[in-house]
Amino acid sequence: MPRDLPPLGSTVWVVGDGYIPPGGSGADPALHSHESICMLNAGDVDAVVEISVYYTDQEPAGPYTLAIPARRAHHQQINALRDPEPIQPGRDYCLVIRSSSPIVVQHTRLDSRQSELALMSTIAYPAA
Amino acid sequence: MPRDLPPLGSTVWVVGDGYIPPGGSGADPALHSHESICMLNAGDVDAVVEISVYYTDQEPAGPYTLAIPARRAHHQQINALRDPEPIQPGRDYCLVIRSSSPIVVQHTRLDSRQSELALMSTIAYPAA
Amino acid sequence: MPRDLPPLGSTVWVVGDGYIPPGGSGADPALHSHESICMLNAGDVDAVVEISVYYTDQEPAGPYTLAIPARRAHHQQINALRDPEPIQPGRDYCLVIRSSSPIVVQHTRLDSRQSELALMSTIAYPAA
Amino acid sequence: MPRDLPPLGSTVWVVGDGYIPPGGSGADPALHSHESICMLNAGDVDAVVEISVYYTDQEPAGPYTLAIPARRAHHQQINALRDPEPIQPGRDYCLVIRSSSPIVVQHTRLDSRQSELALMSTIAYPAA
Repeated sequence: MPRDLPPLGSTVWVVGDGYIPPGGSGADPALHSHESICMLNAGDVDAVVEISVYYTDQEPAGPYTLAIPARRAHHQQINALRDPEPIQPGRDYCLVIRSSSPIVVQHTRLDSRQSELALMSTIAYPAA
Repeated sequence: MPRDLPPLGSTVWVVGDGYIPPGGSGADPALHSHESICMLNAGDVDAVVEISVYYTDQEPAGPYTLAIPARRAHHQQINALRDPEPIQPGRDYCLVIRSSSPIVVQHTRLDSRQSELALMSTIAYPAA
Repeated sequence: MPRDLPPLGSTVWVVGDGYIPPGGSGADPALHSHESICMLNAGDVDAVVEISVYYTDQEPAGPYTLAIPARRAHHQQINALRDPEPIQPGRDYCLVIRSSSPIVVQHTRLDSRQSELALMSTIAYPAA
Repeated sequence: MPRDLPPLGSTVWVVGDGYIPPGGSGADPALHSHESICMLNAGDVDAVVEISVYYTDQEPAGPYTLAIPARRAHHQQINALRDPEPIQPGRDYCLVIRSSSPIVVQHTRLDSRQSELALMSTIAYPAA
């Protein structure tokens, strides 16, 4: 068990390259094209996370709200967000992720539009 | 709708590994090799962005200028820049991106020179 | 030989997107799906590194402990960690890596679930 | 032409996941497996860059020395370094890159051990 730590991370994070590839190959759902924000709440307090989605040609959408319990990982597929509205594949966007307590965010895309998958990942930008 | 936020990010960003793969496979234009800088202006003021291109064997080119309205994403394909001059595929370069107000920049390349695509992405380097 | 340097890096690092792809293709063990944290101890003092694994649905596991001698690289495959327990493929997790002296951590995944491999990598998040 | 800028970046950078994939597919030399550090000297002073290579099981090697003129990009393939000694494929390493004036460093690997290529890239860790 880890020793006590101060909360790790930042309360505001930005993802620049949001894009859910339209479609994907293969029968395994785990290999369908998707995009995820992988978050850690290493602190001892539950975190409330609000995600705003910025587009090229309209006002931002959201917030999409979720909770991450203390000492838990939460890997959120962007295409699984539903409330207030689904995020359409094939459309450019950026994300601002704000949390009530410090978290860490990594952004990953799996693209299987062609028969073999491609991956990309980066720690998101900590803005506060 | 997101609550008011101070402008997020930095006013100077650097991309180290600029390279537009020459050619690409497949009939879908979205799957042609390309390189993009994916930018967010989360602030309430429009941003003017100037991109300078540094090469190995000549003085820098540019600036290439574009505008990002307040609260908007802007994903810019490098191979679509035309003024003052196109950026040739197959040539090493680096980018310095300066903005009149804070933005966030993520750098992504899709390489489809072989029959399947490859992806890479990183938050750019915030230099100011 | 490098000149004397102050220790480089941070003593706390976070990986957000932990996931060991289940299975993999090909006969070459180097091409099996795996995930690694690639660490450098550039200092002149040996480092003791403790890795805590955070999950979605249970309390964190660990610490997994290892030593990195002074002036040495250590690339650790996550699927090779055994004590106190193996980390299961196909399960979301995050990592907190704490070191007794400054190190640098880069996180890389090789995914060969399909016939061709995919790669992703990012410098981890320095949290202290 | 870009306006005058203060030098951008850091004078010490770290790459954690150094590894030159052994071999590669295809007839095009640009598609052979390789690893690069992509550097920008955006300043008005030439930079002298020293690269130290840290291994798992021996004292560090180097420095490998190169010059980056003012206002120039320099993308250096690691497998092209020859002095004081070549860096062997298939071996784990880390890099410390020190420069006489600020630069920016991005680390990229192209892996073509299988018939299709895979890519990964990250801004390196700025340590000073």
